[in-house]
Formats: sequence, C-alpha cells, structure tokens
Amino acid sequence: MDVLAEATRLKERGADVISLAVGQPAHPAPAPALAAAARAAASGQLGYTDALGVRSLREAIAARYRRVYGVDVDPRRIAVTTGSSAGFNLAFLQLFHPGDTVVITRPGYPAYRNILSALGLKVLEIPVGAATGHALTPEAIAAAEREAGTRVAGVLIASPANPTGAVHSRAAIARLDAWCADRGVAFISDEIYHGLTWSGEEATVLTVSDKAIVINSFSKYFCMTGWRIGWMVLPDDLVRPVECLAQSLYISPPELSQIAAEAALEGDAEMDAVREGYRRNRDLLAERLPALSLPFAAPMDGAFYAWVDVSGHTNDSMAFARQMLADIHVAATPGRDFDPVDGARFMRFSYAGSHDDMTRALDRIEGWLAKR
Amino acid sequence: MDVLAEATRLKERGADVISLAVGQPAHPAPAPALAAAARAAASGQLGYTDALGVRSLREAIAARYRRVYGVDVDPRRIAVTTGSSAGFNLAFLQLFHPGDTVVITRPGYPAYRNILSALGLKVLEIPVGAATGHALTPEAIAAAEREAGTRVAGVLIASPANPTGAVHSRAAIARLDAWCADRGVAFISDEIYHGLTWSGEEATVLTVSDKAIVINSFSKYFCMTGWRIGWMVLPDDLVRPVECLAQSLYISPPELSQIAAEAALEGDAEMDAVREGYRRNRDLLAERLPALSLPFAAPMDGAFYAWVDVSGHTNDSMAFARQMLADIHVAATPGRDFDPVDGARFMRFSYAGSHDDMTRALDRIEGWLAKR
Repeated sequence: MDVLAEATRLKERGADVISLAVGQPAHPAPAPALAAAARAAASGQLGYTDALGVRSLREAIAARYRRVYGVDVDPRRIAVTTGSSAGFNLAFLQLFHPGDTVVITRPGYPAYRNILSALGLKVLEIPVGAATGHALTPEAIAAAEREAGTRVAGVLIASPANPTGAVHSRAAIARLDAWCADRGVAFISDEIYHGLTWSGEEATVLTVSDKAIVINSFSKYFCMTGWRIGWMVLPDDLVRPVECLAQSLYISPPELSQIAAEAALEGDAEMDAVREGYRRNRDLLAERLPALSLPFAAPMDGAFYAWVDVSGHTNDSMAFARQMLADIHVAATPGRDFDPVDGARFMRFSYAGSHDDMTRALDRIEGWLAKR
Repeated sequence: MDVLAEATRLKERGADVISLAVGQPAHPAPAPALAAAARAAASGQLGYTDALGVRSLREAIAARYRRVYGVDVDPRRIAVTTGSSAGFNLAFLQLFHPGDTVVITRPGYPAYRNILSALGLKVLEIPVGAATGHALTPEAIAAAEREAGTRVAGVLIASPANPTGAVHSRAAIARLDAWCADRGVAFISDEIYHGLTWSGEEATVLTVSDKAIVINSFSKYFCMTGWRIGWMVLPDDLVRPVECLAQSLYISPPELSQIAAEAALEGDAEMDAVREGYRRNRDLLAERLPALSLPFAAPMDGAFYAWVDVSGHTNDSMAFARQMLADIHVAATPGRDFDPVDGARFMRFSYAGSHDDMTRALDRIEGWLAKR
C-alpha cells in the first residue's frame, strides 16, 4: 500500500511511473459492457435491485457455467455481489463466528487476512511451496491443525492464485472439498482469476461439489475492476441467509455495474484477445527476468502475476521496491504484503498492463540493476 | 422484505402495483451526473481508485459543507463509501468490538440493527416518542443503561429519521455529542436525509463536534440509490484506520459512481425542484390520510416518510399491509421492520414517488377502507 501511495504521488508530480504493482488490467471493460452502461447512464433508470442482483444477470452467469464448464447451476444459487470483496465479507460473516479459525495459504491475497481479522476471526496461514506445486493439501491442513492445537472452521483457496499464479488441479480441489465435507468445514474457492490459466487444468469446485462456496468477479478476465461487480455461487441452504445479510450490508450491488456485467458476458472474443496480450507479457517476463538474476519462485501457471525471488539482489524486498520506484519509477509489490514471514525475499510483478509498458519497465530494471 | 418480494412478484405478473414501500426517489440522478456517467462509461477509463475515493470528489464534498452549512471540513476527513451501507459497516467495525453495546432508536432503520447484530455487537434500542419530539436524549440513554445494567460504546442517531421523519435540533445533537464525548462513547450521526427537512432546523453534527462520525449518501436528496455511493466524515485519528479497513473490505467505491456523484453536486437546482414534489406529496398525505382514520404517529418534519398509526383499522399492520397489497396492489411497509416491539400498530408510507402515484394510491386506499 505504501509503494502504491508513493507511485500515485510521483504520478501526480508528473513522473512517468510504470506500475506493475496493481492487479488491474490496462484494458477497459468489453465494448458491449461500455455501450450498455452508457445507455443505462443516459436513461437514468437506475435504482436498488434485489439484494442478490437482477434476475437476468444471475441467469446469464448460470448460462455461462453451462457454456464454459459444462456444469448446471441453478440461477437462484448465484448471488451478485459488489465485487469479490463483498463476496468474501458475506461468506465470512455467514459461515463463521468470532474466534473461529480459517485456513488460507501463505503467500496469499492480503485482503483475506485483513477481512478475517477485522471480523474477529483467526487466520491459520499454511505455507505453500514447490513441494506441493504451491497448492494446499488436506495433509498440510491436518498438520497445521495439530501444530496449532486447533480445529479449523473453514478453508479458503484461490486457483489460479494471487500472487503465485499457482493452479490447483481438479483432483487437488476434490480432495480438499472431500476433506472439508467430512469434517463439516466450510470450503471457499476463490475463482476470480478463472479465464486466465496458462498451464494445467482450470477446474471450478462446482464440478465436484454443490456444498462449497465459489467467489468470482468481473474484475480480472472481464477487466472491470473499477465497476465493483462480482458473484458468489452458494449452496442451496445459504441462499436465503446470505440474501438477508446482503440486504442489510449492501442493499444491492450497483445497478449500472450489473447492467454492464450482463453485457460483458457477450465480450469473450474481445477478452480472449486481451488474454493473449497477457500471454505475450508473460513470455517476455519468462525470457528476461531470470537473465537479470530474478528467478521465478512459482510457475506462472495462471492469473497475471510473476512471483519473483529477489534474494539475489536484496534481503529486504520492501526497501528494494522503494528504491526501484524512486530511482527508475517502476512500481512492483514487495512480498511482505502477501507473505508476512518470508516476504522479504520476494516481489510480485503484475503483467496485466500493456506490452509496451512491460518492455519499458524491463529495460529500466535491466539498466538499474547493471548500475547497482 | 416479504411485502417487497410479493410486490415484485405481482409486478412481474403484470399487476399495476403502486409502491410506497421503498425509500427510493422516483426521479433519476441529476442530469449532470447522468451525462458525466455516460461519458465515463463510453470512455471505459475506469479502475480502482484510492480506498477513500478520488481526491476531487472528496474536495467537492468538503466544498459543499462550506457552501451549505458554512462549516470547514478538511477533504482528508471525507471518506467516499459504497453507499451509506459501507459507511455503517466501516464505522461499526472500526469503533466497536464484538460484545459492545450500541444505542439506536426504536423505531429506526432496520439495517442498523441487522448490521450491528451481524458484527456481533449488542443493540440497545431506546424507544422515542412524542414526549421528546421523537428525538433521543442523554437522559433516555442513561436510563436505558441503568435498566440494562450496561455501559454503551456508541450512540447512533438519524436526523431526519427513517421512518418517523423526526428532526433533532442543533441543541439536541450538541447535548448528545457532549454526553458521548464526556464518556468516551462514539457518536455517529446519520445525515442521509439532509436536504429533505420540511420543518425545524437541519443541523449537521460537524457544526458542534470534530470527533463525531457523519454518515451520508447521494441516495436520497441526489436520487442516486442504485449507484451505491455515499460518504463519511471522520475525526482525524480515524482517517488512516478506516482507509486500511476500506482498502481490505471494499478496495474502492465504484469509480463510475464517484464520477457521477461529483457531477451531481452541480445538480442542486434540479434536486430542489424534486424536493418540491415531495413537499406536494407530503401535503397530500397530510390532507387525506387522517381523514381515512390513518393519523400520523410522528410529525413528518423531514425525510420522505409518513409514520402512520393504523390501529384504527387493524391490530396487525403486517397482515394489513399484505391484504392491502393483495386487494388493491398498493405496497407500504409494516411497522415491524422498524419497531420489533410496537410495530404492529404502525406502517410507513414513502412519499418519494410521483405525485400521480401518490394520488392513485390514496384513491385506492380510500375505496378499499370504505368497503372493509
């Protein structure tokens, strides 16, 4: 957050900052989404919607599950949310009680830890690494439970994962789901980077379970971060309680964003072209970063992040990130945000920006490292 | 919520439902807001913003405080939020710990109770009535503390209030603020219906305190419910903690709504004309409802609600509301939603709709009651 704030400050002063720090596509929302939103804005006919979102959007998301994954999901199980942020908040509030312990991976998305803590929940961070393909396993959870002397109330994974890009296979997801189901433990699958898998199988937990909770969003594949629109897929028995909670906490998601999101679902061809841009960026990083003694600490199988080992240059990635921003105006995220224990060795580079920016950033980093 | 759902179901079947049940203006957002949003949507240049909102909007809100109230507020103290809903959630999470007791009035906005409960906070509902002008007093809080054998951690008032329309005078607000300040109790002032005061003084707590928390929104006066955009004014020492919490829980408010909201602040003339429409609706209700043995239980000094005593017709306002909807397709809200103790005697009629709808609804109610 501090690097981000400093990058913003530099930009406001007119500096040519290249940001690889934010998980935000440079591309706008799909053209049909922009057109639908402009029409709706001009008409002004906007108001509260049902707490779980407008019916046509819920149906369109369900239809997408059939089309893309071949899985039937009742539209009533789809809850449209104000970004995945609202999805996490609703899931945590509905599923857990203060003092409950929830498993997440380390490294992982920092908002998980922050939201859980803000709600009075305990976080059990389980380190993931090369030995398990950066994936979580039932054995690792059981071992962590024993070590911590606790029983967990919930397990949350992201696949593809932020910041590692790691992808859990369908078999890995099924094992976690079965382990959770056996123990009455809630299983939450963050699928926000679906559509952006470069290697391996992109599996939704919905193909193995109708008891798990899915969190997803239009922010990443559909390039709609600023619209704050996402969805959950809920087990039948959670639909009504989550509806009541969402009504109280959000009233409804923004209607304009719901209209845009429904139209966005027609934008696959455009978004697939955007994805090819990420692939080119990923290839560029794969070629150039290791040559700068910046090897990958995880395989870049999905999402648009490179999780990079910077220990060849520094033992303090936070200071390194600050210096890089100050010297060459390239922003990237220090590992501490994602891994409070070992983060000093790592940095996250987002490759969701333009190819030109990626190239310029790498050129600057190369020149900078050569002079250090 | 059940009456609303039934109203929606009837509408979907083609029934000519007139809804006086939702606190939602029939008028769209101000024209400059719609134009700005349509332009921004067409451009597609939308993304995450600072967690507390874009600087220019925060500055524009601060400027409005100078213009409308003659009070200087540092723009850094303004936190733009995803509707007032987010403001309440952030305030409650930041100020209180699970088990803390927070005072609200009864009757009152049901989401207060629901959000507080969802966060593990205890709710101390203090009945307000004609004796204190439907306002909360330090004496009433102190008495309720003694009776409940507890100390409160926070006090939340709304002025103008939903559902009573009651307005707290500046002196009443100042007394509450002083009582809270003396005891280290957090004081939250919900000013979401500001701009819609028909009688008495419309005072913001900011004129008497820089330690209280203000919650406000573009939903009501600016007719922007579906845009989910509001703001808080925070004491200096809460700005940074709320920023971190907002970053985790919301990332940022929807950027399109922020752009529209900033433009909406130029829409006062249009909104003042809309307000005159509410005044006409209010006059109509004041003339016709008492003649139908539906007297007002509170003075309609502000907001756009009539809090009506229906005990001349029923001892169960929920059944009455259901029957009215079924028989004549007029939806209004049973009192239980706002007052879990005495709500069976009351109903809330929103007059934020069109004058034509108000007239038609009253005609139907008159005919219906004559035949009962």
